[in-house]
Amino acid sequence: MRCGSKVPLYGAKSFLCRCGGLYDVRHDFSEIARGGRVYWHDVFDKRCRPVRGHAETTSGVWRFTELVMPSIERYNIVTLGEGVMPFWRAGENLRNWVGGNLDLWIMPEGLTPTASFKDFGGTVMVSVAKQSGVEAIGCASTGDTSAMAAAYAAAAGMKCVVVLPKGKVTDAQLVQPLAYGAKVISIPGSFDDCMRVVRELVDAGKMFPANSLNPARIEGHQATVFLAAQFFDWCLPDWFVVPIGNGSNSSSVGKGMRTLSELGLVGRRSRILGTQSEAANPLAMSWGTVQKDGCAQASESEWMKAYKPLEELGDTTATAARIGNPVSAEKVMREVVSADGAVLTVSEIGLNTAVLVAGRDGHFVCPQTGMALAGLRKAVPLGLIRERERVVVVSTAAGIKFPGVVTEYGDGTVLETGSCRTEEIAEAIGV
Amino acid sequence: MRCGSKVPLYGAKSFLCRCGGLYDVRHDFSEIARGGRVYWHDVFDKRCRPVRGHAETTSGVWRFTELVMPSIERYNIVTLGEGVMPFWRAGENLRNWVGGNLDLWIMPEGLTPTASFKDFGGTVMVSVAKQSGVEAIGCASTGDTSAMAAAYAAAAGMKCVVVLPKGKVTDAQLVQPLAYGAKVISIPGSFDDCMRVVRELVDAGKMFPANSLNPARIEGHQATVFLAAQFFDWCLPDWFVVPIGNGSNSSSVGKGMRTLSELGLVGRRSRILGTQSEAANPLAMSWGTVQKDGCAQASESEWMKAYKPLEELGDTTATAARIGNPVSAEKVMREVVSADGAVLTVSEIGLNTAVLVAGRDGHFVCPQTGMALAGLRKAVPLGLIRERERVVVVSTAAGIKFPGVVTEYGDGTVLETGSCRTEEIAEAIGV
Repeated sequence: MRCGSKVPLYGAKSFLCRCGGLYDVRHDFSEIARGGRVYWHDVFDKRCRPVRGHAETTSGVWRFTELVMPSIERYNIVTLGEGVMPFWRAGENLRNWVGGNLDLWIMPEGLTPTASFKDFGGTVMVSVAKQSGVEAIGCASTGDTSAMAAAYAAAAGMKCVVVLPKGKVTDAQLVQPLAYGAKVISIPGSFDDCMRVVRELVDAGKMFPANSLNPARIEGHQATVFLAAQFFDWCLPDWFVVPIGNGSNSSSVGKGMRTLSELGLVGRRSRILGTQSEAANPLAMSWGTVQKDGCAQASESEWMKAYKPLEELGDTTATAARIGNPVSAEKVMREVVSADGAVLTVSEIGLNTAVLVAGRDGHFVCPQTGMALAGLRKAVPLGLIRERERVVVVSTAAGIKFPGVVTEYGDGTVLETGSCRTEEIAEAIGV
Repeated sequence: MRCGSKVPLYGAKSFLCRCGGLYDVRHDFSEIARGGRVYWHDVFDKRCRPVRGHAETTSGVWRFTELVMPSIERYNIVTLGEGVMPFWRAGENLRNWVGGNLDLWIMPEGLTPTASFKDFGGTVMVSVAKQSGVEAIGCASTGDTSAMAAAYAAAAGMKCVVVLPKGKVTDAQLVQPLAYGAKVISIPGSFDDCMRVVRELVDAGKMFPANSLNPARIEGHQATVFLAAQFFDWCLPDWFVVPIGNGSNSSSVGKGMRTLSELGLVGRRSRILGTQSEAANPLAMSWGTVQKDGCAQASESEWMKAYKPLEELGDTTATAARIGNPVSAEKVMREVVSADGAVLTVSEIGLNTAVLVAGRDGHFVCPQTGMALAGLRKAVPLGLIRERERVVVVSTAAGIKFPGVVTEYGDGTVLETGSCRTEEIAEAIGV
């Protein structure tokens, strides 16, 4: 992204440019552009009907093969049926809590094989790995990334290695990688040591990285935008609201919109609202110092100058986004500025309340989604998001993966009665 | 089902017939039958493309509105987008473990809003409740039923009551109902007391029951068969394999096949393999005493005579199917016999191994699904299921809801190294 030098995607051994910048995947869309708007809308719409053995119809990501990875050979596609999921219209409780009388939608990306949005990137990353002849995939993660890497490696018949610091990981965090048969190794060091080990094993050509540095992941995450565009009859919503951890969501939302727009498949693009928690808000903090009148009128370079990674992080239930130096920070800045967006900080109480309010409508989302919802609620009185605008919130994981929100912040006390008499119980519960 | 007496579905206050028998929902399909095979296949296929605000296109259950509940008014439909999910072709590890060179498929019904198959029944049950003017729904459950009831009640703007025995329930079991805002009440009694209280509150007209007695649930579960029929181009597979707890899966698979077949929408029906664990196998045990040559040639009445509820239950990780007296036992017998099926007992090691083997293919399923997979493996050498037959396994919940399988039975040990040196780590993990 910085110096403009190029490397081939398949068979790549290095995942950070010699200049220190990130890689960004570029496709040759010239063939595809010839199809035109009507042709492609029709192709994508027809693929909603599943046909056995055709990943284009059985995966919500590969429905858009020509946009996410046109150079993939079909037999290298490794899919678990990710992206086949509903859209949720926000319920009354949430709409009232957010305010602004919005046309509000939630994309529940937790309703996927490993219960987080990472599957969207995972399917593309592992398919690229397969086409590259890779035999092992590795990461240093206790969360959704290790679950995703382990699942897709298993589906591809590859080895998956998860490197972790000894004594700092709970059994619960290992259930998914172990269920998928990953090799988990604990070393006497910190998380940074684990990351270094993974980087060195990648550099030595011994494995393919599953972390956010891998640019193939972003390509798959674009499907969020493609699915939404299709759902809204090929008109993008006014806003996408996303939580920011390492930044792959905001990066891919931006990139996906550019892809659609350059190929003439949609008209107007959406704006992007990124959200971070008080515990870890390096992008929101720096955006705050350079924005004017609550809009992203700052340039990327101004923002970059103001941006400082955070060393000390606070506590939050939104652990998946508790990141002081987002890998994709550069990409986030590019996309938010280009989409006339914003990045807001939300309070810990705000994000947890959001989860509980959405639950009252039957939508149990993760605390990272809570960040997005609380950010949205903040953006309305700021005038950033206007009355009746159409807003799509990207819900990044299933609520059941984060029970702490309910046990720590929930107001749902368990009532008790002194007897088993039905009348007494009826009175206690008010029926 | 026994005495032939009839009650109206909407506004029903009683959920067990005066004769002690179960209710079964009957629809008037005369209008629908006139459409014919080609017409309905085309209608259902077109609904795969989601259209906002049309539940027929945004829910895999309501795609089949005319089959699951033709009498519902569209504005009473309460949906969370259940049944929008992929099909999984079984991977190599599982296919090899099962044997028989089968064309083996898994329906991951855990990839639904509350992460269990109960959502299929829940959406129909709560929609019927809404059309009946119900204000509160209740159950005595710590598992998937309470999660489902709480979620759909929230979506419908109804109250949900969960009655539980004091001191016998863990925090983890309450996360979902509390997240959805259910009123949880703990009483100083046993689970049977809780059930009695719920029954009395239902009889008093104070709430609608969310448990398996509610016949509207079965109607929604039929969508499993409808989705599978559609996925296989309107030809049913040779077998459906299901775990049996209270029996709603096997009942609804049988009923769904009859519905399709009576309307002329499919040709040949599937056979049904029901499975139970050693810990709780009243149906498998009694089936074993009346079957001949491993096939369900027994009559319903013979089976009924041999059937005895179990009082003492063993331990199992498949807690959701640990039931000694299945509510739908009668319906299970009817459907298994009519589908020339079988019910087998599987060992505790078998069902847990099945989960771990499926995990190696990237499919993390629950231990109840493990029961179905282990039963399938047993049915192959018995000659019940033949080489190359097409088999659909109904996977009833997400694996992450049942971490015990991995922590208690998993072979995935965590490797340890004495240093953080990359070479040593590479050697330890064999890359």
